[in-house]
Amino acid sequence: MSEKGLLLVISGPAGSGKGTVVSDLMRTYKGEFALSVSCTTRTPRPGEKEGIHYFFIDREEFERRISQGKFLEYAQYCNGNLYGTPMDYVQNRMDEGISVILEIDVQGGLQVRKNYPDAVLVMVAPPDFQTLEARLRGRNTDSEEDIRNRLLRSKEELAKLSLYDYAVINRDRESLKAAQEIHDIVLAEKRSVKRCPDFAKKFYGEE
Amino acid sequence: MSEKGLLLVISGPAGSGKGTVVSDLMRTYKGEFALSVSCTTRTPRPGEKEGIHYFFIDREEFERRISQGKFLEYAQYCNGNLYGTPMDYVQNRMDEGISVILEIDVQGGLQVRKNYPDAVLVMVAPPDFQTLEARLRGRNTDSEEDIRNRLLRSKEELAKLSLYDYAVINRDRESLKAAQEIHDIVLAEKRSVKRCPDFAKKFYGEE
Repeated sequence: MSEKGLLLVISGPAGSGKGTVVSDLMRTYKGEFALSVSCTTRTPRPGEKEGIHYFFIDREEFERRISQGKFLEYAQYCNGNLYGTPMDYVQNRMDEGISVILEIDVQGGLQVRKNYPDAVLVMVAPPDFQTLEARLRGRNTDSEEDIRNRLLRSKEELAKLSLYDYAVINRDRESLKAAQEIHDIVLAEKRSVKRCPDFAKKFYGEE
Repeated sequence: MSEKGLLLVISGPAGSGKGTVVSDLMRTYKGEFALSVSCTTRTPRPGEKEGIHYFFIDREEFERRISQGKFLEYAQYCNGNLYGTPMDYVQNRMDEGISVILEIDVQGGLQVRKNYPDAVLVMVAPPDFQTLEARLRGRNTDSEEDIRNRLLRSKEELAKLSLYDYAVINRDRESLKAAQEIHDIVLAEKRSVKRCPDFAKKFYGEE
């Protein structure tokens, strides 16, 4: 019932086709979705624009924002840089009626759930293990060890599916079906009574 | 993720346009939905067919089935006749992948929720009280007392909205929007992780 945007976490192991699904969603439903813009402590690469690709801030400022609870989730990557999703940017988009997509891993998704329980968590999953393995091997760019590591990590991610809200099986990476299903999920969630408990009150507000 | 049908309770006060929405749903998504066929103790009217319009059974048989818990919900109407939704008929349709629509009042819907917690409860609601009243008065067939009684009953039904899962606002009774939204809700519910908690297990079933 709410016509505000939703916060939509989209996760999925390597080989799930999650990236394509997110592009399909952005392209097919123009104006309905926005990608979140992250804060990072790393230095901008040539061509990267403040507020478009990232918000570039220094470590001191990043740590201050952590202590102020201003991130929906954050993580430190191997290179030592911090990356985080700023609550205020996401909230502003949602207030404009735009649903914000966070394409992050399960660990990040569960951090978001904790900090913003109204988020909708969607896992994009391959139809089965064989397909996942075939997709990873089909890339032909990764070493056997890399492939094994990715398969192991995929297992770990999918094992946490029960903590997510929806699972969308991406059978055919060429079709728009998975993106359409996520679009349906967003509509359904907007009609969910738990998102607008005071409808009956509003309904009679003018009496 | 389950491709079984769902049990879909559709309620809505007089003036909500619920009946039209159900017809739209049946006509627009042929083969995806079936209306439940009720059991009744009343005698068939000319042209009414067993198993199509109703299952006609006598009171003794009806009461035996009540005691055996074979109804999803039942009620006795003013005329003294019993009407009930048979669990087995609904279950068979769902097993065939067809979602079964129960167009019943809120009291019946809440009985269904108790007997079959997986049911999806949708309230079709008018956009506001003024529209509801205008629609009821527009019929021009009801007495002022009838209209007042219907308005009172509508209020009572909408006051229980928080016990339902979804609210679909039927702004324009000529458009298919409300039916499309219910169709989206069914798809989303089928992708809900809680309906398929053992996906990750199945996923690795063949290893």
